[in-house]
Amino acid sequence: MVNNLAGFLPYLQGFLTPQRQERFESVLEHRTRHLCVVLENLTKPHNTSAVLRSCDCFGVQNVHMVERDCDSKVDKQISLGSHKWLTTQIWNTEQASAENQVNIDEDPTVICLSTLKSQGYCIVAATPHETQKSLYDLSIDTPIALLFGSEKKGISAPALELADECITVPMYGFTESFNLSVCAALCLSELVRQLHNSDMDWHLSESEKDELRLQWAKRTIPNIEAIERRFYSTGFAE
Amino acid sequence: MVNNLAGFLPYLQGFLTPQRQERFESVLEHRTRHLCVVLENLTKPHNTSAVLRSCDCFGVQNVHMVERDCDSKVDKQISLGSHKWLTTQIWNTEQASAENQVNIDEDPTVICLSTLKSQGYCIVAATPHETQKSLYDLSIDTPIALLFGSEKKGISAPALELADECITVPMYGFTESFNLSVCAALCLSELVRQLHNSDMDWHLSESEKDELRLQWAKRTIPNIEAIERRFYSTGFAE
Repeated sequence: MVNNLAGFLPYLQGFLTPQRQERFESVLEHRTRHLCVVLENLTKPHNTSAVLRSCDCFGVQNVHMVERDCDSKVDKQISLGSHKWLTTQIWNTEQASAENQVNIDEDPTVICLSTLKSQGYCIVAATPHETQKSLYDLSIDTPIALLFGSEKKGISAPALELADECITVPMYGFTESFNLSVCAALCLSELVRQLHNSDMDWHLSESEKDELRLQWAKRTIPNIEAIERRFYSTGFAE
Repeated sequence: MVNNLAGFLPYLQGFLTPQRQERFESVLEHRTRHLCVVLENLTKPHNTSAVLRSCDCFGVQNVHMVERDCDSKVDKQISLGSHKWLTTQIWNTEQASAENQVNIDEDPTVICLSTLKSQGYCIVAATPHETQKSLYDLSIDTPIALLFGSEKKGISAPALELADECITVPMYGFTESFNLSVCAALCLSELVRQLHNSDMDWHLSESEKDELRLQWAKRTIPNIEAIERRFYSTGFAE
């Protein structure tokens, strides 16, 4: 389908209002893959959903959800549909074994984090327990995968072993940790602000933008299946 | 009781470990009333609780909860007990009329905000709808009461009318607002960071600290009622 993007995307864009297309472009201008988020075994849908909503708000496109002992459920009242604009990937044992032909016993966290490391991401674990290093001292020079652990158990031992850095958000009270979705938002806010103020190239490439233009158009246009069938059956496709 | 503080507080401190007393002091060093938070008619206990937890984490001592159409419930799994270290005040029609002898028909939001204004607070409403002014352009020169509205209806019209400023947290995605507890944490994080970096006197006074030392000791020591009775009946009290 990507081969046909050149024809299909402009065709689909004809179904979008100019306002909607402008919105896509202004959101795309702030989208990044220089940061991504990994949620390990989150058990509370309202946390997962609030993190997804924050990722959309801050322009962080990719969210990885590891499910070893849980299903990633999204609370739509909290996510406000934000997940449909993001690129989310579920990592569980079944999916990992099907897609990557790995040993079914292998830990999906390990597979997820190893994959991200091989893509050049620095794994940064947000944990108040393992470090005194502040979020505000983290360098954004390399791509960062921000790792958050489950509400009760925190980040798993194998995940901590794969982490390149651990950070904490400075706290001044009695409570020993922020709420998970609050912690994620504080991290994203700071790192995105640093990115915006830097002269690094943190934007999506034009081909990445085209893929999202297509994905978003397809999620916006009613009766997209019929439109797609018509396009490919009437010779519009190359 | 404040008159007896000089005698009762040192007596109570004898029941606390040195570690606990040091913890109190280090938390007190970061406590402030230069910022406070007003929650207007929040309906979701997990939001109220996450905001309370963030206030404790950031050292913001006072939280006002207006209840016109709701009861402020706290989800203890989310607040993690943070509310017991804070000074919280409920504003509803009954309480307002009993304490301040005002007209029972008067809006508790109006009473709460008018009281805070008379105490010198600048009311700053966090709302993405009313303004383009960024959180990051807000001056912390005067004491600030940060106002957050209910999850569905937002900030009420009478509250907006009393607000001195409206601010928004910059967003770059499709979603039109942050989750309420996320928004509150982002605001607190930024303003507290500015306070810490300023040379303003944002700390509590010594007498305010003494009141909290007493309050926290009483909430920490088991069988405090019996200890208090014994103190006042055996002539320790002046």
